[in-house]
Amino acid sequence: MTPGRIISRKILGGSSYNMERTVKEDDHVFVVIDNKRRFLIKTSPKEILGTDKGFIKHDDLIGMSIGSYVRTSRGAKAYILEPLLQDFVRGYKRATQIIYPKDAGFLIYLSGIGPSSIVVEAGVGTGCLTTALAHFVGPKGKVYGYDIDEEHLSIARENLEKSGYLDRVILKNKDIREGIDEKNIDAVFLDLPDPWNVIDHAYDALKPSRTLLIYVPTINQVEKTVLAIKEHGGFIDIKSYEILLREYIVEKGAVRPHTLMVGHTGYIIFSRKVLKV
Amino acid sequence: MTPGRIISRKILGGSSYNMERTVKEDDHVFVVIDNKRRFLIKTSPKEILGTDKGFIKHDDLIGMSIGSYVRTSRGAKAYILEPLLQDFVRGYKRATQIIYPKDAGFLIYLSGIGPSSIVVEAGVGTGCLTTALAHFVGPKGKVYGYDIDEEHLSIARENLEKSGYLDRVILKNKDIREGIDEKNIDAVFLDLPDPWNVIDHAYDALKPSRTLLIYVPTINQVEKTVLAIKEHGGFIDIKSYEILLREYIVEKGAVRPHTLMVGHTGYIIFSRKVLKV
Amino acid sequence: MTPGRIISRKILGGSSYNMERTVKEDDHVFVVIDNKRRFLIKTSPKEILGTDKGFIKHDDLIGMSIGSYVRTSRGAKAYILEPLLQDFVRGYKRATQIIYPKDAGFLIYLSGIGPSSIVVEAGVGTGCLTTALAHFVGPKGKVYGYDIDEEHLSIARENLEKSGYLDRVILKNKDIREGIDEKNIDAVFLDLPDPWNVIDHAYDALKPSRTLLIYVPTINQVEKTVLAIKEHGGFIDIKSYEILLREYIVEKGAVRPHTLMVGHTGYIIFSRKVLKV
Amino acid sequence: MTPGRIISRKILGGSSYNMERTVKEDDHVFVVIDNKRRFLIKTSPKEILGTDKGFIKHDDLIGMSIGSYVRTSRGAKAYILEPLLQDFVRGYKRATQIIYPKDAGFLIYLSGIGPSSIVVEAGVGTGCLTTALAHFVGPKGKVYGYDIDEEHLSIARENLEKSGYLDRVILKNKDIREGIDEKNIDAVFLDLPDPWNVIDHAYDALKPSRTLLIYVPTINQVEKTVLAIKEHGGFIDIKSYEILLREYIVEKGAVRPHTLMVGHTGYIIFSRKVLKV
Repeated sequence: MTPGRIISRKILGGSSYNMERTVKEDDHVFVVIDNKRRFLIKTSPKEILGTDKGFIKHDDLIGMSIGSYVRTSRGAKAYILEPLLQDFVRGYKRATQIIYPKDAGFLIYLSGIGPSSIVVEAGVGTGCLTTALAHFVGPKGKVYGYDIDEEHLSIARENLEKSGYLDRVILKNKDIREGIDEKNIDAVFLDLPDPWNVIDHAYDALKPSRTLLIYVPTINQVEKTVLAIKEHGGFIDIKSYEILLREYIVEKGAVRPHTLMVGHTGYIIFSRKVLKV
Repeated sequence: MTPGRIISRKILGGSSYNMERTVKEDDHVFVVIDNKRRFLIKTSPKEILGTDKGFIKHDDLIGMSIGSYVRTSRGAKAYILEPLLQDFVRGYKRATQIIYPKDAGFLIYLSGIGPSSIVVEAGVGTGCLTTALAHFVGPKGKVYGYDIDEEHLSIARENLEKSGYLDRVILKNKDIREGIDEKNIDAVFLDLPDPWNVIDHAYDALKPSRTLLIYVPTINQVEKTVLAIKEHGGFIDIKSYEILLREYIVEKGAVRPHTLMVGHTGYIIFSRKVLKV
Repeated sequence: MTPGRIISRKILGGSSYNMERTVKEDDHVFVVIDNKRRFLIKTSPKEILGTDKGFIKHDDLIGMSIGSYVRTSRGAKAYILEPLLQDFVRGYKRATQIIYPKDAGFLIYLSGIGPSSIVVEAGVGTGCLTTALAHFVGPKGKVYGYDIDEEHLSIARENLEKSGYLDRVILKNKDIREGIDEKNIDAVFLDLPDPWNVIDHAYDALKPSRTLLIYVPTINQVEKTVLAIKEHGGFIDIKSYEILLREYIVEKGAVRPHTLMVGHTGYIIFSRKVLKV
Repeated sequence: MTPGRIISRKILGGSSYNMERTVKEDDHVFVVIDNKRRFLIKTSPKEILGTDKGFIKHDDLIGMSIGSYVRTSRGAKAYILEPLLQDFVRGYKRATQIIYPKDAGFLIYLSGIGPSSIVVEAGVGTGCLTTALAHFVGPKGKVYGYDIDEEHLSIARENLEKSGYLDRVILKNKDIREGIDEKNIDAVFLDLPDPWNVIDHAYDALKPSRTLLIYVPTINQVEKTVLAIKEHGGFIDIKSYEILLREYIVEKGAVRPHTLMVGHTGYIIFSRKVLKV
């Protein structure tokens, strides 16, 4: 254990701290009381985390082992954790409808991106997909995030600061329908009302073989987008998907799915650039 | 364009080649005729790729631009692509039931792993999830893959060689129920008939805050596993999920889901280590 | 138009009134303001239907044509309709978790019952499935409804009175686990915590070829029930199902499923009696 | 037991035979060897039922109890059953894509029809939905079935003869887009490529409060149909649905859904007539 060691957020996902890591000042920690009471905080002397289950003094957290718990002023157990990808996204301030983990995981798997990839995304919105992209491209990768709304970008920047991924992201207040500045891109992700207006630009930006991933909420947008991609002629493997996630309640002798579920988020359109000869 | 440049498979996912990359000798390329005729090959002088739509001489591929197409001996268009994560998995020789992209994407998102992560997986089987894990942990990460079946490991090794990820993977012919040799692990992935026998070992191997991901085909295994995790007492956020994927047929004026779909693969159990005090 | 004509509720589902039917005194009518404000009432002089969108005097309804609308005191349009099967069920006072239309429709289709069928049901609960059964067996059929809870039976009786189907139903305050009094039955429907304790009695009550339909909320009950039916040996075609219903929002150019859906109600187990020789 | 008693097919769904019913000459029986070998036959002296599991002489069936089994010439068990609604539909000769039980059950439940109802259906196709409608309206009800294709009607007639429901059905070789001859109808069911062309006629045929049920395979048809119904102005409660059916494999300690499922059949559109004033 190295008490004074600074844990840079840049190495999240890595393995550079040992198992007895303790909380420091200015540390991003994730405080979990129960399924609904989950707080992403930055420890700061004299600060207090207030909850309806009692409060916690930040000072009491400093020096605690990651993975242990404290008691709130009202006696509730609160685990002190290192935040993971899904925790950042839950703790984010929201500007727009977000892309859910079930969809983000599939989008990223299909895209083929990984450590060191260079990707383009529009629009950024709340920055949830941006965070997942930044997470997976790692410190040597780069995410170029376009949005026409300055306020969205400002919320996204604040959110990305929390997750420690801001240095891998270039936020651009630009209408992607007017063009993509970058070339040689590994994947383009579009979450826009009219992705059909960006197909041409995505083609120009992408490396051959590489992927265009589009996320839209209505079936009409799926149709219009797929027809535009087909007409463009420079993409193959055009596929349209929908992901449904069911969560189960598991009690001894009484296993069943949750009564309510999210029945719809959006559709995913995949395609892949080839050379038009 | 640098004609003689060697493209190491290790940098897949990265961005180190430019847009005019051409096929070399000993290059792994992905030849796509249509949705069903897709071949992962290593180019070799005088070799021939035979298909029921005609053959292609490897020699004719060398020097071609990635993203362009050749004609088979019977005139079919065959695109020459760089293989992506999903292509490796499709091109793999199978030893066991594989974990599908819809599940792998969600598992990896939930796990919190990323570039430089150190993970443990058992059983390796065909090596599909192993490949995805190796892809996302990147060249600085490591995947320890346990399997009790030597033949599975030998098939997995052959598959991982194809994807160029073998150097990030340590395959171990060991029964994980007897213990996990590694410590300080970022995530443990189990795809075994009896994951409840590995909970204790997973706990010992994991860093606090980090995740245990389990994949099982039956509801009975979900119940038994979740009860074992609860009883262990060292995990929180225990969740059980199921992912359904629908693919759509998109034709102008006639959009509808595919008639047949995969209705079941497996269930996903998530949990996260805390300290037992 | 026969102004004084009495419309017996017994003929619902039939075709015995003509297209210009008008509302009478003591008529069961269904008043629909919007998707959430839907009222099953029995018209009675001087009574008032109060809603948060204004009130309606019953007297103003009498003489109106079925299918026309009145205005509430606050000007909202309120359609005056003849209630259909689904409307009764929505308007019922609830005693227990009900069986949803998606499940009831499938249960009844599979059961093979129709006009004149004689069926047994347990437990009756709120009486929703009872109502659907009574509806489809018609005035010449009969539903024997068992429930151990007198209060449930009293609520079910009240509900069945509203739908006009009470005369086709025999409600029995008896524990069906102690035996079924009836023989020569066309279908037995069980919605009980422990249907495995009723398999033997169902067998004795059913005609050969005829069907046993079971509805349970957990997978563990599915397993236990199916194993009990298999062990009994007197049933074939044992099948277990689950029905998912998605509703769509249809707006011009923006079609998509509802964001939230009911993700789980219960499982349906079908089987069919053969002779044990 | 009354050995010489004639069992009219008209009373199927009823309860008019006792538990010891035996097979007669010219009886419709359902012979079940296993899940795939299921035969709807009419017993006839000297006839033989040939199967790949051996043959059965019709003469050997006569006098057998319903629910008992015989052995085929190769020793396979074959149960002799009374056919139920779902068995007819499975045994039908197919002219067109059929409407599945999961959809038929829900359509009929929503429609509000029951014993004595008078309904209109177009197109008849194979006659599967026609059979279900005829089953549920009973001997006092009536189904008017429109189809423009004479060959479909001839196949449907043959199928309906098998189920014994032909006397409740009036098959009409007429284009329903040119009008519905009947009035005072309880429900109109449309399974056509262009239901939007029939909305007006359905309105004229239906009683106020009563229901229009439409079944279409594509989302584009859903959109066009719903917009046409809205524009017509004479319908309320317009709803669009989709039903998914999962079947489970239930083995002791190993319960899970089938690997493959039918992922799509069609969408269901419900609406209900009100008076246009």
